[in-house]
Amino acid sequence: MVSINLPRLKESLLELAKIGFNPEDKGIYRSGFTDADMEARRWLMELAKQDGFEASMDGAGNVWLGLGELTQPAVVIGSHLDSVPAGGVFDGSLGVMAGLEVLRTVKENKLELTHPLRVLGTSEEEGRFGGMFGVQAVTGDLTPEWILSAHDADGIFLADAMREQGLDPMAALDAAWPAEKMKAYLELHIEQGPVLDTQGIPLGVVEGISGVFKWIVHLKGKADHAGTAPMDMRSDAFMGLADFAHEIQRIIDEVGTDKSRITVGKVELKPGYPHTVPGEAIFTIVGRDMSEDIMEELAEACERALRAIARRHRLRFDYEQVSWLGPSYCTPSVIELMEERAKARDWQFLRMPSGAGHDVQFFTKMTDAGLIFIPSVNGVSHAPDEWSHWHHIEMGTNLLLDCVLEKAR
Amino acid sequence: MVSINLPRLKESLLELAKIGFNPEDKGIYRSGFTDADMEARRWLMELAKQDGFEASMDGAGNVWLGLGELTQPAVVIGSHLDSVPAGGVFDGSLGVMAGLEVLRTVKENKLELTHPLRVLGTSEEEGRFGGMFGVQAVTGDLTPEWILSAHDADGIFLADAMREQGLDPMAALDAAWPAEKMKAYLELHIEQGPVLDTQGIPLGVVEGISGVFKWIVHLKGKADHAGTAPMDMRSDAFMGLADFAHEIQRIIDEVGTDKSRITVGKVELKPGYPHTVPGEAIFTIVGRDMSEDIMEELAEACERALRAIARRHRLRFDYEQVSWLGPSYCTPSVIELMEERAKARDWQFLRMPSGAGHDVQFFTKMTDAGLIFIPSVNGVSHAPDEWSHWHHIEMGTNLLLDCVLEKAR
Repeated sequence: MVSINLPRLKESLLELAKIGFNPEDKGIYRSGFTDADMEARRWLMELAKQDGFEASMDGAGNVWLGLGELTQPAVVIGSHLDSVPAGGVFDGSLGVMAGLEVLRTVKENKLELTHPLRVLGTSEEEGRFGGMFGVQAVTGDLTPEWILSAHDADGIFLADAMREQGLDPMAALDAAWPAEKMKAYLELHIEQGPVLDTQGIPLGVVEGISGVFKWIVHLKGKADHAGTAPMDMRSDAFMGLADFAHEIQRIIDEVGTDKSRITVGKVELKPGYPHTVPGEAIFTIVGRDMSEDIMEELAEACERALRAIARRHRLRFDYEQVSWLGPSYCTPSVIELMEERAKARDWQFLRMPSGAGHDVQFFTKMTDAGLIFIPSVNGVSHAPDEWSHWHHIEMGTNLLLDCVLEKAR
Repeated sequence: MVSINLPRLKESLLELAKIGFNPEDKGIYRSGFTDADMEARRWLMELAKQDGFEASMDGAGNVWLGLGELTQPAVVIGSHLDSVPAGGVFDGSLGVMAGLEVLRTVKENKLELTHPLRVLGTSEEEGRFGGMFGVQAVTGDLTPEWILSAHDADGIFLADAMREQGLDPMAALDAAWPAEKMKAYLELHIEQGPVLDTQGIPLGVVEGISGVFKWIVHLKGKADHAGTAPMDMRSDAFMGLADFAHEIQRIIDEVGTDKSRITVGKVELKPGYPHTVPGEAIFTIVGRDMSEDIMEELAEACERALRAIARRHRLRFDYEQVSWLGPSYCTPSVIELMEERAKARDWQFLRMPSGAGHDVQFFTKMTDAGLIFIPSVNGVSHAPDEWSHWHHIEMGTNLLLDCVLEKAR
């Protein structure tokens, strides 16, 4: 059984981690199409070329590394090279560098494969411009209108940010791959959650990406003087919100699953004065599940609960559904392959959903696609203290290798 | 039985309501020591002089109108002339103009009184500069240091605002009255709450001003990805806050009274992103009661509840007590007098606390002091749609007259 070379992978990962590193907060700053992001892409292409692999950048800024001619459909190993601001060392980078390590292992061991291998380092996965730009270019999920209207929170347009880096935004449309030229897409990523770490399980086999809906809810009551308004004569919008918070667990218990999540992450009270009964509460609800039917039941239960609460507290209730994204499912045969390969190495794994979005979700409808998780220490991600243990990185990359070999043989 | 002249009072009140009126939002703008505030003071002195009363302004900007020599302790009728920005017609103004109407009625009916009468139109009751400046000057509750350091939310110093109006800030210290020169202090004010209006009772006899404490509470948990963190692995600071909100009614039921109020008016969640489990909740608790012992029990129960909630949700809990102000009690004999006079006119009344602060609270420790409420339509105040019915204004002013006559005879 062939295995990867951890010291070599480690060296490359730590080298990449220097690009965009901020010594002040110890965070990685490689937001999509910033100088550091582009530097990382050029560095990776150079590194791959030195090892004798093909390396190129497509019109969307995605980096492609290659081993073998595209005479047969390719097995693609991917993840993203960009980071959130003040991000960690492994989010995205791990999957790309693990891909290169697979190429190196295959080459070094002179393994004969039927299918060519490609490593994909996507651009702008973290959503600076509101999407997953790089992968959407590859899977053909971009339109010219979207490319030209996308902008970041500071009002900088994607098209301008790309031109600044010498890229032609419209060339992103040339990056689309025909489905028939791809055999499979496999990704390795850190979990970015606490489940594997807490349960002491080294590997996660991801069954899919949860669907997610986002609401902005308005509860309107009456802003009263907190001294003069007796408790039973108030229309306190905050108390309505608090009542809803108390229904969340019941709603999940009644119509949800252990994969359901309902989160109130943002709250604004108006007028928001200590001595005034809140006349208005504006808050977000983000709901998730692996089943779109369950998502619909969760949403319906939230609405029913809020209507009842509004009546009870004499509040006006309305909400805006900002987004509704159904779940995407990893390919069952890939899930089985991952579990079978893990068993072959005698490694424990957990089949689990991913609550966060990943490049893989755009490939699920195009090709055989799957995602492997390794534990995140304390579940931390998107922060400088994001970490994963090297022995888990070694296991994850070896499982990735085993699956790639199986698919490419 | 002598009674006041409602058309005359109405005319004066509506005349005063033109000063500082903003035709755009229909609100009154007479914040302390603004041009409109000073114009109202000069207008009132002129009006009183035309009617043959003494009229002067003291060093704190308070207007004093007088009938009779100060050979005996004075019966003072007071309230404030300033308003909140975009305030209503009656808040403060009613009590001052009702005082003038009492003077006019006494003079017109040539009533013989043992004690001289004084009407006090206080300055800066609404707290633009963080206190109740005018009345505190009269009751001797000011220090030079406070006068010189007080400033408003825009950073304008009280001293500068006074100088701008030709007043010497230090002269405010000359406005203090010796207690022995005051026989009683009586005030008429709109309720600014919904109790009288809801219960259909025309008069409130105020037993005192609730004590009030203000806390800023911090609950600290862990900011997690709302997708990757399972519901049972979160340390959700918002859920801790929601749990506390649910304890409020229990706490009041267990250790409070029908005069207790506990309000969460201001909430900040960190980081405050829809897709992130709130790692921190910072919120205010404002508690009130008419008994300081009860206030202490309420505070203790809040703390105990928050400690338990913090343990349950794996949160860190601490709080800062920003302020603690004990209740002030109106003089029992004045309360009795008011109730007796209301009964004599066969009028219904409610003995009630005041949850809002009023000029009277500084007089309670200096002289016999009492406060009459009339209903606020829908409980609205500090807004352009603040209103009270003229027939209630007439009843309130007549009850004030009866009590003044009784005290001054």
